[in-house]
Amino acid sequence: MASKGPLSGIKVLDLSSLILGPYISQIMAEWGADVIKVEAPAGDITRNIATTKTPGMSAIFMNLNHNKRSIVLDLKTPEGQDVLKRLVKNSDVIVHNYRPRPAKKLGVSYEQLSSINPKLVSCIAVGYGRDGRYSERPAYDDLIQGICGIADLNGRYNESRPGYVPTALADKVGSLMSLSAILAALYDAEKTGVGQEVESPMFETLASFLLLEHLTGPAYEPPLGPPGHLRQMTPLRRPFKTSDSYICALPYTDKHWRSLFKIIDEEALINDPRFSSVAKRTDNTIELYQMIENLLQQNTTEYWLAELELADIPFAPVSTLDDLLKDPHLHDVGLFEEYEHPSEGRLRRVKSPVTFSKPMINEPICASSLGENSREILQEAGYDDNQIDRLFKASVSA
Amino acid sequence: MASKGPLSGIKVLDLSSLILGPYISQIMAEWGADVIKVEAPAGDITRNIATTKTPGMSAIFMNLNHNKRSIVLDLKTPEGQDVLKRLVKNSDVIVHNYRPRPAKKLGVSYEQLSSINPKLVSCIAVGYGRDGRYSERPAYDDLIQGICGIADLNGRYNESRPGYVPTALADKVGSLMSLSAILAALYDAEKTGVGQEVESPMFETLASFLLLEHLTGPAYEPPLGPPGHLRQMTPLRRPFKTSDSYICALPYTDKHWRSLFKIIDEEALINDPRFSSVAKRTDNTIELYQMIENLLQQNTTEYWLAELELADIPFAPVSTLDDLLKDPHLHDVGLFEEYEHPSEGRLRRVKSPVTFSKPMINEPICASSLGENSREILQEAGYDDNQIDRLFKASVSA
Repeated sequence: MASKGPLSGIKVLDLSSLILGPYISQIMAEWGADVIKVEAPAGDITRNIATTKTPGMSAIFMNLNHNKRSIVLDLKTPEGQDVLKRLVKNSDVIVHNYRPRPAKKLGVSYEQLSSINPKLVSCIAVGYGRDGRYSERPAYDDLIQGICGIADLNGRYNESRPGYVPTALADKVGSLMSLSAILAALYDAEKTGVGQEVESPMFETLASFLLLEHLTGPAYEPPLGPPGHLRQMTPLRRPFKTSDSYICALPYTDKHWRSLFKIIDEEALINDPRFSSVAKRTDNTIELYQMIENLLQQNTTEYWLAELELADIPFAPVSTLDDLLKDPHLHDVGLFEEYEHPSEGRLRRVKSPVTFSKPMINEPICASSLGENSREILQEAGYDDNQIDRLFKASVSA
Repeated sequence: MASKGPLSGIKVLDLSSLILGPYISQIMAEWGADVIKVEAPAGDITRNIATTKTPGMSAIFMNLNHNKRSIVLDLKTPEGQDVLKRLVKNSDVIVHNYRPRPAKKLGVSYEQLSSINPKLVSCIAVGYGRDGRYSERPAYDDLIQGICGIADLNGRYNESRPGYVPTALADKVGSLMSLSAILAALYDAEKTGVGQEVESPMFETLASFLLLEHLTGPAYEPPLGPPGHLRQMTPLRRPFKTSDSYICALPYTDKHWRSLFKIIDEEALINDPRFSSVAKRTDNTIELYQMIENLLQQNTTEYWLAELELADIPFAPVSTLDDLLKDPHLHDVGLFEEYEHPSEGRLRRVKSPVTFSKPMINEPICASSLGENSREILQEAGYDDNQIDRLFKASVSA
């Protein structure tokens, strides 16, 4: 009864590299899809970034490409394009990041793709949408963080100058929006029998993501005030200092504040006219937060974590990456999985954070070396061994 | 031929409030789904946060709840639960954030829901997964940013102390992952005729999101080193200072660097042994970046933006929220839309950042006031006017 997941049976062709595209197909693979990663002869550049044991198999590459099969294909050759056409015929989804002109040259414009397979869902994951003036600009995570407003916001309220969020935020938020769009189109294709093209640009996605709370005053025409959600922009919205590190606490209701005043032995504050209601506390936020921090500094994080939990005040530790990997809750839910990789030995990976109630087979398939599955994928596409040898010899595949 | 989008025909019941759940159903509504927002008699708390013209219709509430119909339902009453059952019968998707015990009390445990409608996809969007020890802890964006590691990373590399990213990052990344999971399950339900429950916890999602690049050394067992992707964690990964503000530039290839050295009138650096290859530049990053910043400070941002574009070096401005709202590319692609709201007057909203190639009808439906659509939704569920009046009188609906 168990399947590989809600996407089992779906065939995905991923022509992308780096993070934006591979994260999309990584989640699809995790949820049961059969993902073929098409790589140029040089391979995905992430194969060799950061921590690596064997060349071409970096940790980051594996994180992004578990459960995918790799075929080398030189799409600049007509033979490579012929192979691609056969693969497209058997696919449900294709992900790529070619702009209209190069896409046409390589045979992956939506017109070309849909003439081969009208039910195909084609996703173009790019930096800037094709209908805008930046459409030809190169896009990288840092740059999108800059232009979407997050670097300025992050810098203005956390420091004196603009600063990037230390993760590939734009790429990955872009991936998740693209994935949703693909799955919506896939659902529509299943109902109507006809696929479509989905264009998912990072800049537009990050702008809409950020403006969800930050479109305040200018939500009205004429604007009622400047943009920005003040609570998120106040420098006071930050973890509190304790005697040995930091802690997150979010007393919110009157009850939370009463409990907090009690555990810091300042029960009298409950009746202090400056802090007696939400409205008063909002008016006196700076005083209040400064006072709380002064008091929390008199004891350790461990002490306060226990106290806040007992008092039922919303709290959390400020975890480092090391803490995160050791977090007992994440181990309870089995988020991390150890497994054996044929060339890399014993490895650790992060599983899907989502749980589906239908039973799923959990068999981690190891990230593939460059072209590891070329021959088998070509066989499935109908090539015989002689033809495959010729494609290898001509360096169309490898 | 045009439809309301790839999700047209889908009926979504959203019992959630704040950001996490409403953002999920907001995107579904934008893509054509018919979303019914079920609100407790007090209404969604976001109706009254930040900039507001008319009480109960804040800008942030509208951003999150365009294109949804609102029904008031007191689920604590048996009559309210009866209404909910009828709505469930006609729905494809339900989104809520009740933990197992309260869910059962309110009649929304998956067992109860699936007995009414076996094809239903039920999504529980929560803070911590039910199988882990934090499952009963309250979760808010700040707290999840703390425990998932982003506050520490953001603080460590942008400032001297942990700092939150100034947007509801955990909520919204959680929304996008949940949305993908719902759509995967919806696709599966369409193929198999049987729905399922999807549990999508923010903490697990943010941990997996962050570790995509930051699971480096510990991807191996025993670990090859500490976690963390150094490039993203270096304080040097930040926008450069110019004479009047800041600018993002990402010279990467040899060609980019040659062009950059040329436009800053330091062509000799191309042959400087410290900077002649990627490997050398990586070894001498600090010197290199410091030098670039010193040179960029000799002219304005506007000057450098033009120079970098001409020289084909990846670049972007560091936009403020005001800049973002005026961005010409976003206006080219029509991301912002002005429209009339019956009670709020002329408004501005952000449209879906994704473009679907199948023609879509674009008719913004205004965010509803609390219970605005109660009567019509109850009629659709089969209640006659007398019954509806009784439900209103008993304060089950309003």
